[in-house]
Amino acid sequence: MNNRPPKPKLNFSDWYTRIVKKAGLADYGPVKGTMVIKPYGFQLWENIKDSFDSMIKETGHVNAYFPLFIPKSFLAKEAEHVEGFAKECAIVTHTRLKNDEKKGIIIDPESKLEEEIVVRPTSETVIWSMYKKWIQSYRDLPILINQWANVVRWEMRTRLFLRTSEFLWQEGHTAHETQEEAQKETLDILELYRQLAEDYLAIPVFTGLKTDSEKFAGADKTYCIEAMMGDKRALQAGTSHNLGQNFAKAFDVKFQTKDNKEEFVWATSWGISTRLIGALILTHGDDKGLRLPPKVAPIQVVIIPISKNQNEKSKIESYLESPISALKLSGIRVHVDWTNSTPGFKFNEWEMKGVPLRMEVGPRDIKNNQVVIARRDLGGKIFLPKKDILSEVPKLLSIIQNSLFSQAKKFRDDNTFSVSSYQEFCSIIETGGFVRCGWNGSPKTELKIKENTKATIRCIPFNEDPDGKNCILSGEPAKHEVIFAKAY
Amino acid sequence: MNNRPPKPKLNFSDWYTRIVKKAGLADYGPVKGTMVIKPYGFQLWENIKDSFDSMIKETGHVNAYFPLFIPKSFLAKEAEHVEGFAKECAIVTHTRLKNDEKKGIIIDPESKLEEEIVVRPTSETVIWSMYKKWIQSYRDLPILINQWANVVRWEMRTRLFLRTSEFLWQEGHTAHETQEEAQKETLDILELYRQLAEDYLAIPVFTGLKTDSEKFAGADKTYCIEAMMGDKRALQAGTSHNLGQNFAKAFDVKFQTKDNKEEFVWATSWGISTRLIGALILTHGDDKGLRLPPKVAPIQVVIIPISKNQNEKSKIESYLESPISALKLSGIRVHVDWTNSTPGFKFNEWEMKGVPLRMEVGPRDIKNNQVVIARRDLGGKIFLPKKDILSEVPKLLSIIQNSLFSQAKKFRDDNTFSVSSYQEFCSIIETGGFVRCGWNGSPKTELKIKENTKATIRCIPFNEDPDGKNCILSGEPAKHEVIFAKAY
Repeated sequence: MNNRPPKPKLNFSDWYTRIVKKAGLADYGPVKGTMVIKPYGFQLWENIKDSFDSMIKETGHVNAYFPLFIPKSFLAKEAEHVEGFAKECAIVTHTRLKNDEKKGIIIDPESKLEEEIVVRPTSETVIWSMYKKWIQSYRDLPILINQWANVVRWEMRTRLFLRTSEFLWQEGHTAHETQEEAQKETLDILELYRQLAEDYLAIPVFTGLKTDSEKFAGADKTYCIEAMMGDKRALQAGTSHNLGQNFAKAFDVKFQTKDNKEEFVWATSWGISTRLIGALILTHGDDKGLRLPPKVAPIQVVIIPISKNQNEKSKIESYLESPISALKLSGIRVHVDWTNSTPGFKFNEWEMKGVPLRMEVGPRDIKNNQVVIARRDLGGKIFLPKKDILSEVPKLLSIIQNSLFSQAKKFRDDNTFSVSSYQEFCSIIETGGFVRCGWNGSPKTELKIKENTKATIRCIPFNEDPDGKNCILSGEPAKHEVIFAKAY
Repeated sequence: MNNRPPKPKLNFSDWYTRIVKKAGLADYGPVKGTMVIKPYGFQLWENIKDSFDSMIKETGHVNAYFPLFIPKSFLAKEAEHVEGFAKECAIVTHTRLKNDEKKGIIIDPESKLEEEIVVRPTSETVIWSMYKKWIQSYRDLPILINQWANVVRWEMRTRLFLRTSEFLWQEGHTAHETQEEAQKETLDILELYRQLAEDYLAIPVFTGLKTDSEKFAGADKTYCIEAMMGDKRALQAGTSHNLGQNFAKAFDVKFQTKDNKEEFVWATSWGISTRLIGALILTHGDDKGLRLPPKVAPIQVVIIPISKNQNEKSKIESYLESPISALKLSGIRVHVDWTNSTPGFKFNEWEMKGVPLRMEVGPRDIKNNQVVIARRDLGGKIFLPKKDILSEVPKLLSIIQNSLFSQAKKFRDDNTFSVSSYQEFCSIIETGGFVRCGWNGSPKTELKIKENTKATIRCIPFNEDPDGKNCILSGEPAKHEVIFAKAY
């Protein structure tokens, strides 16, 4: 059960790109660094989105939509924020094209905007400019708004799902009466992110606090979920920020408190993105392709009929009719592959696409009143009596969901190390893996380690235990226990 | 049942803006012409979106996502297309900001792009550049892809939901082997639009063909659904285009046919947008505010407890507990307003928000084992025995859904006229209403009428009957029977 599948033989990066293409998940768009999410990849995103959307709605959040365009001056209102995003902004300067007899279609210079517009890299500024209008008194609080949107961050080195110039995400932006309430919201959301990652995507995560040098530009505190990918590198899978009163101050958003005072509003923001699809591939993928957790798989069961002629095909069709409709009725996502390719071709294709369960049916199975089942997580075949399909398939899907999580967790735990010297630290970072060790709390130490090894502090985990530990670089008493790794 | 509610006393345009603001649907964003869709408006959009998303998925369509950014040169590949959109494009020219000691945050001139980027006004060009890579043979067809996305068309005169610089929509883009198949798809989708408008939004529509001067830039034929608003003007509520081989030719997308020939691919595209929310307001709204069709209303039943003290409040709470959970279990969207405002204030607020059914419960109702029901479409009160709540509420919602449609249909039919002279034509267009009349098929006639009266041909309805009719302007035998109106 805990056997990690053979690791990819290809160079990891080529292997990743191959899966993204072959499984039909995504493609590069014509403008450098942009991404086309193909139908199969988008269904995966829809399932992730729907799962998280239900979670936040159950906890009282509502969706809304804010504009793509932000006046340049807004971005500059919060000093750290503009510093963090200025270098990767798409900027709109004109609003009209015209035909030029010599040069063809050109920008109409007369359409130049008075103030340039930034395409949102994130929406804090535009949203707080609206909250300024919407919040007067404690009666208007809390505001618990989320939006599903596209954002743009101009990137030089891109990789599909992991880093592209445009990506899809959700961004929550909440406003509160007190610091405590904002802090609670920040952590409540982080817990939902943990649930989404572990219980739906079967990706084990460390939860904790980012150091100051890794936090969101404009936040007081950034919390994160951090996962280990199949090449032992870390991937930041979601972040939840306590923004303090920074944006309220930048946009002058005050409210009348219950005891009639005026105070700046407290804020949070939090996001997960299509990057999670990259995390799924990098956590669960193997040499044969994707392995998808049943809860988010676009297809949970693929049925491959094995027939030599039309007569056999018809028999299989009627044999399968009732179990298929029963499975669908019980909410299971079933697909029957009636195409003309060979069974071998189909096996490979659906393994590449990561479908959790394959069901084969041929003439002999009809005779034996059975179907053949293959689990994508482990391989091997099971003969299942036809009468047990409806009861067994959901159980198997649940077993696969847990099995993928266990495999990933064992792999992560096996590759998370304690070390006794900086030399050992460097050698593990070099070979690959997470190092859990003491840190003296100094940004200089952090920077020096990053320059030496390319490893960064992924988080100060909630369950840290710095007592009696020493800083891995300086040998001083540790202020925190942290997790170091090279990251995506 | 068919009594049209009193028409707004305010100037229609002020009345519209007032509802959008007061009902909490939307607000202008900081960049001129952009829109913030507030939570209540966005829930409405989510319900419309989910309804249509199910319809297209049931008919074999899948969702995907294409980039926001289009190379400028792509837009120019289809001649009519660039002509149609060039004048309203947001254009990205730079990708970095920097700090200037004197001027503050400015564009970094060194980040100028080699080729400027257009923010998508619609996605035909970027999508057909991808289809070029995806389509080789008839085996790759049909492609039935849809995307839910934001698009940008720079507008000078904007109005929330009806015309904004950025809006949300769905755009379907399909690719087919034959002209016939593409034509069938175009009309099948138009029929889904009709169903969405009439059966969900309770908005009666005329379906038909656009004239050449009103068709989509790049289409062979544009079909539409056209609705009459409360001020008797027309609103184009959805369009479905047969693109012929225009985009396939522009992007050189050929496929190998079943009999081994090479042919250009046939295409359609189709879209509906957040404009439909504007249509809902303008069709059903009255002096008191919105009136929402139950099928898409964010809240279908609002419950107003009427209590003078905590003791009464507790009694109402336990009295309502079981009917509320029963209603919710049966899928009805119920909200109880426990806020401290007066009942009168609450009545006004929920009427403004257009909730179809209001349920009042006070001490006297508990004594009589009843609730008081008020229908938003008609007003007046009904006393409903408590035991009948679960059976009667769904019936009432269904009655209201039909009643709103009937009212709107009667209003439209009462204001759609046949005319015997051009003078009569002009006087109706002046007063308001649709005119159904003969047209000689000439764009010159169309233009002259537009210049004279501001009326345009909204569509050539499918059920036209030109035989024996004459052109309203020229008196020549009619080539088509058409619908003229002033439009949004």
